[in-house]
Order: sequence, then structure tokens, then C-alpha cells
Amino acid sequence: MNWLASGLGKDLIGLEPLSADQIHTILDTAEPFKEISERRIKKVPVLRGKTIVNLFFEPSTRTRISFEFAEKRLSADTVNIQTVGSSVVKGETLVDTARNLEAMRIDMVVIRHGSSGAARFLAERIPSNVINGGDGWHEHPTQGLLDLLTIRDRLGKIEGVRVCIVGDILHSRVARSNIYGLVKLGAEVAVCGPPTLLPVGIEQLGVRVIPRLEEAIEWAHVLNVLRLQLERMESGFVPSLREYNRLYGVSSARLGRVPRELLILHPGPMNRGVEIDSDVADGPHSVILNQVTNGVAVRMAVLYLLAGGAPERAESAKAGAEA
Amino acid sequence: MNWLASGLGKDLIGLEPLSADQIHTILDTAEPFKEISERRIKKVPVLRGKTIVNLFFEPSTRTRISFEFAEKRLSADTVNIQTVGSSVVKGETLVDTARNLEAMRIDMVVIRHGSSGAARFLAERIPSNVINGGDGWHEHPTQGLLDLLTIRDRLGKIEGVRVCIVGDILHSRVARSNIYGLVKLGAEVAVCGPPTLLPVGIEQLGVRVIPRLEEAIEWAHVLNVLRLQLERMESGFVPSLREYNRLYGVSSARLGRVPRELLILHPGPMNRGVEIDSDVADGPHSVILNQVTNGVAVRMAVLYLLAGGAPERAESAKAGAEA
Amino acid sequence: MNWLASGLGKDLIGLEPLSADQIHTILDTAEPFKEISERRIKKVPVLRGKTIVNLFFEPSTRTRISFEFAEKRLSADTVNIQTVGSSVVKGETLVDTARNLEAMRIDMVVIRHGSSGAARFLAERIPSNVINGGDGWHEHPTQGLLDLLTIRDRLGKIEGVRVCIVGDILHSRVARSNIYGLVKLGAEVAVCGPPTLLPVGIEQLGVRVIPRLEEAIEWAHVLNVLRLQLERMESGFVPSLREYNRLYGVSSARLGRVPRELLILHPGPMNRGVEIDSDVADGPHSVILNQVTNGVAVRMAVLYLLAGGAPERAESAKAGAEA
Repeated sequence: MNWLASGLGKDLIGLEPLSADQIHTILDTAEPFKEISERRIKKVPVLRGKTIVNLFFEPSTRTRISFEFAEKRLSADTVNIQTVGSSVVKGETLVDTARNLEAMRIDMVVIRHGSSGAARFLAERIPSNVINGGDGWHEHPTQGLLDLLTIRDRLGKIEGVRVCIVGDILHSRVARSNIYGLVKLGAEVAVCGPPTLLPVGIEQLGVRVIPRLEEAIEWAHVLNVLRLQLERMESGFVPSLREYNRLYGVSSARLGRVPRELLILHPGPMNRGVEIDSDVADGPHSVILNQVTNGVAVRMAVLYLLAGGAPERAESAKAGAEA
Repeated sequence: MNWLASGLGKDLIGLEPLSADQIHTILDTAEPFKEISERRIKKVPVLRGKTIVNLFFEPSTRTRISFEFAEKRLSADTVNIQTVGSSVVKGETLVDTARNLEAMRIDMVVIRHGSSGAARFLAERIPSNVINGGDGWHEHPTQGLLDLLTIRDRLGKIEGVRVCIVGDILHSRVARSNIYGLVKLGAEVAVCGPPTLLPVGIEQLGVRVIPRLEEAIEWAHVLNVLRLQLERMESGFVPSLREYNRLYGVSSARLGRVPRELLILHPGPMNRGVEIDSDVADGPHSVILNQVTNGVAVRMAVLYLLAGGAPERAESAKAGAEA
Repeated sequence: MNWLASGLGKDLIGLEPLSADQIHTILDTAEPFKEISERRIKKVPVLRGKTIVNLFFEPSTRTRISFEFAEKRLSADTVNIQTVGSSVVKGETLVDTARNLEAMRIDMVVIRHGSSGAARFLAERIPSNVINGGDGWHEHPTQGLLDLLTIRDRLGKIEGVRVCIVGDILHSRVARSNIYGLVKLGAEVAVCGPPTLLPVGIEQLGVRVIPRLEEAIEWAHVLNVLRLQLERMESGFVPSLREYNRLYGVSSARLGRVPRELLILHPGPMNRGVEIDSDVADGPHSVILNQVTNGVAVRMAVLYLLAGGAPERAESAKAGAEA
């Protein structure tokens, strides 16, 4: 496996360990892959005969499906494992699961897991490529990448762009991957949310804290609105949904005075009427569905690069469509 | 997507909106597809590189598997979503699910949902082709089509054939799709079942009510025996299984005096000993397994036509088998 | 379907009904298939256009995934059915499920079921090839075959090899398939475990009972260490995990004095610290991961042979890789 060709390394665990160049390489490689999903025949033979396992220890539709489409459009053979009905039920350790998959000679694993560090733990124990599909509160790097790609698409650059992430930063792997990626590519990053949901010392990541949403809207070119996990209320982090919506909900009334270039991102699934109102989610500022579209392209690029594809050959890989 | 070539429209939501010609087109197109499943190599490249989502909000083996085989035999890439472990758990609305799938550039969705109208709701919101795999008590059009095909196979025609649907008509999407299809193609249609399970005003659909099963057996060329949902008893619609079987259970004793041409259909899964006895289910009148076989062919035809296949080219599509 | 070419018959229900020659045929056929999983492109067109159903009535990761990889590497179209969300929920009988699958013109079924005899029951009712993926306490033939292959790989032969199966023999389909296979191929077989977990009359299968693990370790060339089902304790078969580990747990301390050629097998998933200690599971005697690797090859061989492949053509089937 000559994955060194891509300069990416064996795995994609997070954006924190990547250099700006490596991130640019992934985003640039995603470009030619975008077009494949727009074709009548959405399939290229790039990963033909590769076997990929989607190993999901947490429920997920969006991310699992997005990876599955990316894998199938690259002609890989994919197998899904979800905790329900798996031998995880029988109490097998993650390392045994990993070694068993390895012994079956799989090429890649996409892992989603509730524990921070699970993806790295796996990656260090098996020679297959490992892609982190979200681990605890740690990182969700393909989400970060698709957010970057969406911003770059619309604003033509990342450098100097002012991005404010809104909501529950403390528990969010999406926030973390965004912050690492944005800071590396030279964006200005802020966060805005209830003080109980902001990590202590976040300024050390190069991030400013903006207390009020109105101020964030004034300042930002991009708002990345996080999902409010409804269980946060039960844990007392947030007094009520109504109160949350009043203070941090992104509504068109609030956006009214803003120039049109403000972009609204949301990683989904949305709680309409809580962290985002429908008129914003479906309005002119929203690039939420572009994020979803870019998600497939970014994941195709990551799969391609980790499988040893050279960035400069992505265009011709794309051309090698099956008849 | 030139789905107009088929004259079918973008979606298959029900048989009610179709013309007799459109239904005949689907049935005729199913004919060449039947043979593919009898081959050693059950695969033609008709939907190669298309991505199809089977989106099931209710449990199903039969329908899901039948669609999945139809899709794979046409070489499509398929992804299954079932409510367990999906972001439906996270409370995402159907419209958000739809838009997300659309943003991933899928070509078709097969949806099964507990609410009547869910398939149309979806179809109106996304440009992908939508096939109704059963929505609440509304319609289950591919089941109706496979029933029509099975009757036509055996009796050589639909027009003038006398079909009696037996059982819980009120809650049955299968009954509804059958009635629409049969009436359009010129069959005479009756229903027979407990008065509590017959919809008020069903005669307005061009259907007669036959109170007693014995009478229905005398009259009909075809009995379509519906599954009794066992939860109907708990709701008081039916006094007991034993009582139901005594009055509406199709047994060979009851069929004894009937000429051999009477056909017995059942959409499955059967409650043997309740609405149908085993000697009938497995006896000479039964075409229940033919229905299942035809189900794959009908679904291949629908997928082919909605994907823009021209009815007159189905024969050559079939010939284009991969080596 | 000319499955007679393989001399195997239509189904693989267990190793008990097979002759030594038939078992050798499967093992020999597995050899060329091993290499496919080591390739960059892990795919040959041997089962192209065949449809296979993995019908799992019990949870399983390892076996289901292993079959799924075997099927996909042979280019079959596979569909998974698991009890959760299937019409088994609706109370359909196994025979109706079987007939329905048959009516959809599937080529093969892999069935796992909690009842001994379920696989044979299915096989007798449908013309498709049936492979037993584990039925109750009866047999798990592909596990037996992969154990045989692993022993033969390492020791160069089965005949005369001394194999001791350790643990809960009574409830183990793995033990049963191993015993049948090993005895037929001329191995000497012993069992060692708590007296409550040894079947009465096991000596009649040509098996000796070794009461103490120390003695078994002295005697054997191979230890096949079974998983302790933790529910056995609740049923009173085993006093405590700690006690079990003390008496029957395979630890490196116990193996210390043994020549290196002793092989340690385990069918997985392991309870580390109960029936096997980590230093043994991961130590030099262990061939546990080789078993997993061989599992895919053995299953490919079984699928190939049941589909009508001739043993002597397996080498060229392998060569027919898709470009």
C-alpha cells in the first residue's frame, strides 16, 4: 500500500495532526470527485476489489450513508457493522474486533465510536487505513473537511475568513475538527454559546469567545450552527429549549440586517426551532445541503488518497469511469 | 433523466393516479424481466452506477428484499436505511431526510412509512424518483401490480375477471392498490370481511360487498386473502382468531366444491390457520409463490421505467446481460 | 445447477455427513482461494450474478462478515436478513421464509439459527444451496473446516495429530463440528472441561476425556479453547468465572513447559481472562488470527463448490481475476 504517495499517512484520525498543505491536498482532490456524483453513471473503478468496513458503534444515518455512497461510487466492496446484533454484544474488545477484521484482510475501516481516542487506538493496532467517522468529543475530521470545502466553494478562500461556531462547543467533535482545520488554513475563528457549554481555555486554540449571538452575526462571514443535543437539558447545561432558542437560536429576524454573504452551516440533523429556525435553514444564507453534497466528495477524496491515490492523478482517476 | 420516455412520470405513488395504459405498460415491461431471475447469471447492466436508497420506516423483509434483489439484478448500487439506528432516532423530519438524500445525489428512493401520504410528500420535495413501498393504509402499488401480473399470467387477462378481496379491507393498503388497479383494468371487484373491517362507502370505488365467504367463493375467479393483523383483535375489531377463522378463514373444506380455476392470492406473511389454512396455502389453487416471483420482475420493470427506460427497449435491455 | 461436479452435494449442513474425501476436497479447494484475499484487487468473477442471502436469526459479527467478504470477493450479490426488523417479527414460519426466498430465485442461503436442525430443515425444503452458519448446539461446519485448515497449514497434516477441545463441549456446535471432522481425517481427539459441560457418552464419537487441563496440555499437539458462554454460570453449570479460569483457563504459566509446536485455537469472540489469558491469545502458540483468515478462504471454497465449481478448476477460477 503506497499511501505515502498522497503525503497523507496511513489514517485520517483528525485535522489536528495535519498540516495546512495536507488539508489543501484533500480539498483539492475532492474537486474532481464532486463531478462524479453529478453523472448519470456515478461510478469509477478506483477502489475496485478493495474491502471496506463501516464500523459504527453509535447510531448514524447521515455519516454512514455518505461514506457508503462514497465507497460504492469508487467501486469498493463495503460491509456494515452496527453494534446492534454484533459481537460487541458479546463483549468483545475493540482490539479483538480490529484484529479480526484485519485477519479478514480488509483494506480500510471507517469507525464511529462513543469514546474519544477510539479511532487512533484502532489505527495503531492494524495496518489497514483507518478513517475516524467521529469519536466521542474528540474529532469528526471528514465533517470538518466538508465544512472547509463548502466555505472555500462559496467564499473562494479560507484564509482571513471569519467563522463563528455557535452552540454546544464543549461536547462537539464537529467544533473541534472545524477549529483545528480553520485555524491551520488561516481563518479567524470564534465561538458563541452558553458559558456552560464552552470549554475552559478554548482561547489557547486561537479562538475568540463572542458572548452574544447578535455580536457574532455582526462579526462573522460564516456561522456554523451546531446541533443542540437534547440530553444536555436533562443534564442541566441548558435551562430550556425555549430559552436556548431565545438566546442562541439563529432566526431570520436576527439575520435581517446582515449582508447576503453570511453563510449558515449546520452539520445536521437539525432541531428546527431550537438552534436554527426553518426560515434560516431553508433560506438564502444556508449552505447546509451543499455541505451534504460536499460530504460525499470529500469522503471519496479521503478514501482515494489513503488508498494510495496520488493527488495529481485524481483527475484521471475520475476520467477512468466505467462504461 | 428522461423518465417521460416511459410515459409513467417521475414516481410510483399508487395505482389510483395511473391510467389503464400505464398499468399495462408496467405489466408488459415486467415480462422480459421475469426471465432474468431464471438465468444462471441474474444480472443486467441497466441501472449500473445508479444509487438507490431503500428507506424503511416500518419493519419489512419481503418487500425490502424483493426491491433489493430487483435493484441488484439491474446492477444498481443500493443502500438500506431502517429506522433502528438511523437519525430518525434523533428526530429528524422526513423532509430533512429527503433533502439530505437528494443532496447526496441519489437517483431513486423506495420508501415504506407508517403514515398515509408519506411517499407523495417525499416525491413532491425531491427530484429523485420515488417508489411507494407501502404508506400507512394508503397504497402499496408494487404489491397491486404483482397481484395483477399473477392474475394475468394465469387467466390470460384481467378484464372481466371476478376478484374478491377477503379480510381486513379497512386497514389494508394492499386492498386499496388492488381495487384501483383491478377496476381500471376492467375486473369485477368484490370485498368480503367482518363489517367492522370494511370501509364505509367502498361501493363508490366500484366494488361490491359480499357478506359471506361461501358466497364469495361461488362468485369469484380469484380470492385475494389478506393478512389479519393480530393487533386488530386487541383493538376489538375481531372477537377472536378462532371466530375469524371460522367465518373468514379460507380452508380446503370451503373450497372443496369449486372448479380448479379459482386462484388464491395472499400478500404474505401468512397467519396459517387464521385467514388461510395450510392446505389452501400450499394447495393447487394457490399462486402465492408466483406472486413473490412476479414481485421481483414487477419491481425491476418499475425501476427500469422510472429510470427512463423505454418499454419497447426492455427486451434489448434484458439482452444486454453482462458476460 | 451442476453441483454434483464438486462431489459435495447440494448443501453443507455439517461435517458429520461428509466423507474424509469430501472434507479434503474442501480444504484443498480453499488453498487457491487464500491468495485472493492477499491481492490488491480482492475479487474474482466466480459467483457473478448469483444471489445469496445471509439469513441470521442469532446475532453474529464474525461469521456474518466472513461470509459476506467471501461472497463479495467471489462477486456474488448478497442480501442480509437479521431477525430484528424482519418479518420473523410478524411470526412467519421458517418454511414460509424459505419458500419466499426461493420464489425470489436466490441461489444460496447461509443460515444461522438457534435451533439444532434448522439448516437441514431449510435445505430439505428449497432447491437453493444451503450452508449452515451454526444451528443451535448441532454443528457449525465452516468453523470446523477452518479449524482443520489451520491445523493442516501448521502441522502439515491432520492424521495422527492430537487435538484437545477445552471447555463447554456440551453446548458447543463448534466442538461437534470439530470432533466429526477431526475423527474422519484421522486425528486423535480429546475433550477437557467441567464434568457438567461434557456430553454423556462422548466417548462413542471416538473421543477421549481428559479430566485435567495440565494433562491435556502434556498430551496435545493442538488445544482448541472454546468460548465460555457467560450465561452458563447463571444456569449453575460453572461455579464462577474465577474458578473456571483457575481450572480450565489457558495461561502462559500453564503452557510454560510445553514445546513450541503446541497450537492454540479459539473460535472467538474470546473472553480474555476467563477461558484464555491474553498472553496466550496473543502469544507464539496462538493461531487464532490465522483461523479468521482461513475462515474467508474456506467459505469461498464452500460457496464455489456448492455453486458447481469443480475442485480441479479452482486454480483457474482464481486466475480469472477481473482486471
